Amino acid sequence: MRTIKLVLEYDGTAYAGWQIQPHDPTVQGVLKNAVELVMNHPIILNGASRTDAGVHAHCQVAAFQTSSERPIPDIMKGLNAMLPADIRICHAEEVHPGFHPRAEAIAKTYRYALFSGRKLPVFQHPYCTRIRGRINLEKMEKGAQYFLGTHDFSSFRSAHCSARTTIRKISESHFNKLQNDHLEYIISGNRFLHNMVRIIVGTLIWIGQGKMMAEDLPALFEKKDRRFAGPTAPAKGLFLENIRLKEDEKW
Amino acid sequence: MRTIKLVLEYDGTAYAGWQIQPHDPTVQGVLKNAVELVMNHPIILNGASRTDAGVHAHCQVAAFQTSSERPIPDIMKGLNAMLPADIRICHAEEVHPGFHPRAEAIAKTYRYALFSGRKLPVFQHPYCTRIRGRINLEKMEKGAQYFLGTHDFSSFRSAHCSARTTIRKISESHFNKLQNDHLEYIISGNRFLHNMVRIIVGTLIWIGQGKMMAEDLPALFEKKDRRFAGPTAPAKGLFLENIRLKEDEKW
Repeated sequence: MRTIKLVLEYDGTAYAGWQIQPHDPTVQGVLKNAVELVMNHPIILNGASRTDAGVHAHCQVAAFQTSSERPIPDIMKGLNAMLPADIRICHAEEVHPGFHPRAEAIAKTYRYALFSGRKLPVFQHPYCTRIRGRINLEKMEKGAQYFLGTHDFSSFRSAHCSARTTIRKISESHFNKLQNDHLEYIISGNRFLHNMVRIIVGTLIWIGQGKMMAEDLPALFEKKDRRFAGPTAPAKGLFLENIRLKEDEKW
Repeated sequence: MRTIKLVLEYDGTAYAGWQIQPHDPTVQGVLKNAVELVMNHPIILNGASRTDAGVHAHCQVAAFQTSSERPIPDIMKGLNAMLPADIRICHAEEVHPGFHPRAEAIAKTYRYALFSGRKLPVFQHPYCTRIRGRINLEKMEKGAQYFLGTHDFSSFRSAHCSARTTIRKISESHFNKLQNDHLEYIISGNRFLHNMVRIIVGTLIWIGQGKMMAEDLPALFEKKDRRFAGPTAPAKGLFLENIRLKEDEKW
């Protein structure tokens, strides 16, 4: 049996998230069907990150096993011919047996695209969240710093989160100011809780709008209660930007 | 009564075109509702171009009449607060009584976004059409030249086109090669028949793929028969790019 690793990007707008659902189209479901058509046998498709409905990915990692001898370029070409235009395979390769994307992922980076101007260009609306009113980016940047390090993120997970532990280590958390009132928030960590990035972004927007102080964040961590954090920012601004795998460590 | 002119941009993905339909959401329908809510009275909303389902606009022109004294910046702010993120008002002004966008439009420019590479970035898929296989851009550019001037465009209109005359004058028709396998086709003319730009693009793609010769185009004009032209290119690549109004002539 060969284990094939896929790196893919997708526009999450049309999907009920990564994970297969009984009735709604999902990225995992569409990709699994495409792989089964191309490989001509049933497969189990694992992914590194269960992105939510409407969340985009620049580099999701998935893997499946096959007994087929089909060369990698053929598999990739076949998949891209079969997949809809909003899901593309960027890279495929054979990996060691037992490769499981989630177990191999040692760090993930998310990007959240924001717009602080009056008029968000219509062609960016599916990929960016507009912040209403004036914001203080300096305060938001100050707030972002508080997320660095190891914390209990109980205040920053959805009610549906079923993770047993809530301690997470954040290695990167900052804003980049881009052109024309665009900005992005970058966060990297070992693992993330359900809705964690979106709740962090919602809280940082509150801080930017003056509804909360950056200095309130340590107390918010202490509270371990979702109800005291900011709102969950919309899915459409969120991108799974990078996944660092164990094998990359070799480099 | 004041006549208010609006310049708007929209992402056509979610709409059944410009023109109001009984059951499906349309740009005219959504905008009319927003104007009526902001102005607080019923209006008639006219547009310069009846874009098809899925076609985008960078500068549609619309107009309505009102007895309200409300200042223009208030109207614009109110509309943008009310409208969904895929429709934005870029400009509003009071114009002379009797201004009708369609009658005032003396020229329109459309842009068609194409991609000739293997992998169209997923975040561009709603705004660009991928051409399969290899193309010869030189032949397409040669084909584009044949559309310049005054022609009978009977071969380049949909079966649903109800225009009485089919003679149209084209003042601009060319390709621009952009970065990373992107290209665009630009066409300007006085008026356009139903699906005319998309059938021209479909025909130029045929020429690029070697399914037809640029030199076949004069005979295709002569045939006056839609069945001999190329396929109708998808709506998602088409943008209403500019509308020149009579009043702009002053400049």
